Amino acid sequence: MNYPMIINILGHVLRIEGIMMLLPALVGLVYQESTGWVFLVMAVGLFLLGFLLSFKKPKNSTIYLKEGCVVTALSWVLMSFFGALPFYYTQEIPSLVDAFFETVSGFTTTGASIMPNVEILCHASQFWRCFTHWIGGMGVLVFLLAVIPMSGGSNINLMRAESPGPSVGKLVPKMRQTARLLYLIYFTLTATEVLFLVIGKMPIFDSICSSFGTAGTGGFGVKADSMASQTPYIQWVITIFMVLFGINFNFYFFLLYKYFKKAFRMSEVRVYLAIILGSIAVITFNILHIFGNLATSFRHASFQVASIITTTGFASTDFDIWPETSRALLVILMFVGACAGSTGGGIKVSRFIILVKTLGKELKSYVHPKSVTKITMDGSPVEHEVVRSVNVYIITFLIIFTTSFLLVSLDNKGLITSFSAVAATINNIGPGLELVGPTQNFAHFSVLSKFVMIFDMLAGRLELFPMLMLFHPKLYITKPLLSKKVK
Amino acid sequence: MNYPMIINILGHVLRIEGIMMLLPALVGLVYQESTGWVFLVMAVGLFLLGFLLSFKKPKNSTIYLKEGCVVTALSWVLMSFFGALPFYYTQEIPSLVDAFFETVSGFTTTGASIMPNVEILCHASQFWRCFTHWIGGMGVLVFLLAVIPMSGGSNINLMRAESPGPSVGKLVPKMRQTARLLYLIYFTLTATEVLFLVIGKMPIFDSICSSFGTAGTGGFGVKADSMASQTPYIQWVITIFMVLFGINFNFYFFLLYKYFKKAFRMSEVRVYLAIILGSIAVITFNILHIFGNLATSFRHASFQVASIITTTGFASTDFDIWPETSRALLVILMFVGACAGSTGGGIKVSRFIILVKTLGKELKSYVHPKSVTKITMDGSPVEHEVVRSVNVYIITFLIIFTTSFLLVSLDNKGLITSFSAVAATINNIGPGLELVGPTQNFAHFSVLSKFVMIFDMLAGRLELFPMLMLFHPKLYITKPLLSKKVK
Repeated sequence: MNYPMIINILGHVLRIEGIMMLLPALVGLVYQESTGWVFLVMAVGLFLLGFLLSFKKPKNSTIYLKEGCVVTALSWVLMSFFGALPFYYTQEIPSLVDAFFETVSGFTTTGASIMPNVEILCHASQFWRCFTHWIGGMGVLVFLLAVIPMSGGSNINLMRAESPGPSVGKLVPKMRQTARLLYLIYFTLTATEVLFLVIGKMPIFDSICSSFGTAGTGGFGVKADSMASQTPYIQWVITIFMVLFGINFNFYFFLLYKYFKKAFRMSEVRVYLAIILGSIAVITFNILHIFGNLATSFRHASFQVASIITTTGFASTDFDIWPETSRALLVILMFVGACAGSTGGGIKVSRFIILVKTLGKELKSYVHPKSVTKITMDGSPVEHEVVRSVNVYIITFLIIFTTSFLLVSLDNKGLITSFSAVAATINNIGPGLELVGPTQNFAHFSVLSKFVMIFDMLAGRLELFPMLMLFHPKLYITKPLLSKKVK
Repeated sequence: MNYPMIINILGHVLRIEGIMMLLPALVGLVYQESTGWVFLVMAVGLFLLGFLLSFKKPKNSTIYLKEGCVVTALSWVLMSFFGALPFYYTQEIPSLVDAFFETVSGFTTTGASIMPNVEILCHASQFWRCFTHWIGGMGVLVFLLAVIPMSGGSNINLMRAESPGPSVGKLVPKMRQTARLLYLIYFTLTATEVLFLVIGKMPIFDSICSSFGTAGTGGFGVKADSMASQTPYIQWVITIFMVLFGINFNFYFFLLYKYFKKAFRMSEVRVYLAIILGSIAVITFNILHIFGNLATSFRHASFQVASIITTTGFASTDFDIWPETSRALLVILMFVGACAGSTGGGIKVSRFIILVKTLGKELKSYVHPKSVTKITMDGSPVEHEVVRSVNVYIITFLIIFTTSFLLVSLDNKGLITSFSAVAATINNIGPGLELVGPTQNFAHFSVLSKFVMIFDMLAGRLELFPMLMLFHPKLYITKPLLSKKVK
């Protein structure tokens, strides 16, 4: 393990977090809140700590996959821990565990909250809470890659550990440029959403915060009722942008470079949109009797489907009281998730495409036992290594899910609550059903359950393996240490 | 497709079913029930029908995998249909769909019942209902192989479609002998259980029927309260035999041939027993406050764990009122299932061993990217083909499960009911939770849901693919038919 390099990268991450914390401090200044000082002090402290850690550049700057995993997992844990401190010091969240839970939920773009009423927060804290979504959505290490030059293969090992989806697509040959391009698309889309929200007469502060929540597919907002009290126009704008942020960013890259044919032929995007339209149709008719008219049913169905499949977690109404088929479908969409290479969570549409194609291939092999076929996607064959990694992902997901479900069930909150709480955290969604439904929160769980869900949120965001690697004994017990003899 | 051979095998299957139906007719005679005549007429009719179909031996008797799948699926559907007719004609089950559901549940060793009170049945019907478990437990085609000689590779393709588990183990080189050996072990174990039950003063009729239910890991019994009113001795005997029938039959084969070392080193059996002991320990303490003393808690925990993991589905108490952790654990055990090569259902312990080892291998590859390791089990490497088939199985299982869950949720019976009903049928268990809990039944579902669950029970018993193959268009639309031109 290249410890000096790990510490160096962690230092860079904390420095960046320090700089980013200047923004809520600024918000505090604008609104003349004393809490702004907490953010300012934290920002300076973090920057200095980061500066100290990253001061000395290690001679050997190579990062292998194991170091990539460990440094990614540690970055996210530390970032969340330091990010939680302002909430704790302002005493707006009196429990440190709860503040940590809330910040992990923010950075991982989950949006599961322990706050019964978010409106009691000061503007600076509101801003920081939503801003964590925006930072976490694209990934802080991707940001790091955009600003810091690194040696050859190192950056791909960092990116592989943080990016969502079965394979890392380099948009352009240079990793650094890819990272910059991703942030450019991300920033532009976010700014556009703010614009549309402001046109709909949403206050500018609320527009920015809500756009952070949409862009990161997070789900934290500034209102206790999420998006229920917003106008239909605002709800539609947010619906559309949730869908847009759940699309594989390669799509926007193709548009940007005018490869229109390539863009609109991306099967993941097409399947993703097809699932959304199909689900909206089913739910619209299933809830028609609740809202009485087609337009309202259609709006709420669209909003909730977009919110759940992109794993954002906003709510325009209490979907926990919807009929069973709608709720069952929403629970299934929780697992489906958004496109790979988007800011959304879940298992990802492309993985499901590969899974369904695997099944099709299997059935075909029963009919023609001797035929050798390869799965293809977007015209090119899917490498065996990718198929294998998808299978391993699903298995690992099931194991983590089951273990978490059992541990959370010790709280005895009811099977649907426990099941949907784990589903909502590991898939980075936010609200679940019953006691964690859209009108409820996660405060009532035991500390054990909260830590299980903190692990699940991080595991879900970082594609499972980096978090598991943190617990791999072989990483810490190095051979020379083991074979060292007592003199 | 070799249609003549498919019809020939179906004929054999119906003939065997006809012969087996003589037993309930005999029971009717002993108890002087008029319903015995229904069974006798059906038995003769079935035998004649089967005789007609299998009269002409086809020239080409080769069976490929696709024919193996189709003939297996069709056999089970037809067997269940004809097996349901006596219940319908005696009007003990007035609805044909319900009678079909009950018989599929019997043959697939599920044990999910549409009867609120099974005690209203006559002895002949009681016997036939439980006997379907015994027939289905080992498989009727395995029986066929034991009695009818077949050409070379054909029998392995039949066996592969009906036997539970990731790979077909030939106990001895000759398939026919393997099939006979399996039935010998099966018969001996069943007879031993009858003996132990009779010693415990259970009436001989009840002992035989209950042993059929245990042996096939089915769960139909002769009492409305399942096993709740039995003595602790009887409950313990059944617990132990449930566990025994969930063990891979290779274990008994090794014992029979005195390969003791090989038998006790079988990792699947060891993991299976470890899961059982671990689960019993957790549940015993979790339900201690309900029963007040350790012995009773231990007995009920052992009974339910054995019943669920082996997918039998007997109940010694209403476990639906147990605390959440116990219920969550039981739901998870539903999916784990028994050993491959046993009469139990579920996903099977050996598949989970392979899955967990795959994950371990993946994590190892993160630490040592260049190391090439192969998964091993019982000392020998697991072939890539087996690992692949396990992955495909899990994926297919998830797809069928999700689709079924959505369709059943249309009945609006509650998420836990729908989820556990599908889990209990696709894993061939029987009772689930809430509206399909141990004190409830499946009668209240819509016809659509019943057909979905009939499909699930058959798919679960036949390892998914044969049932899917029935719906594969390529099997019916043959090329010459498609390219035939209108003159």
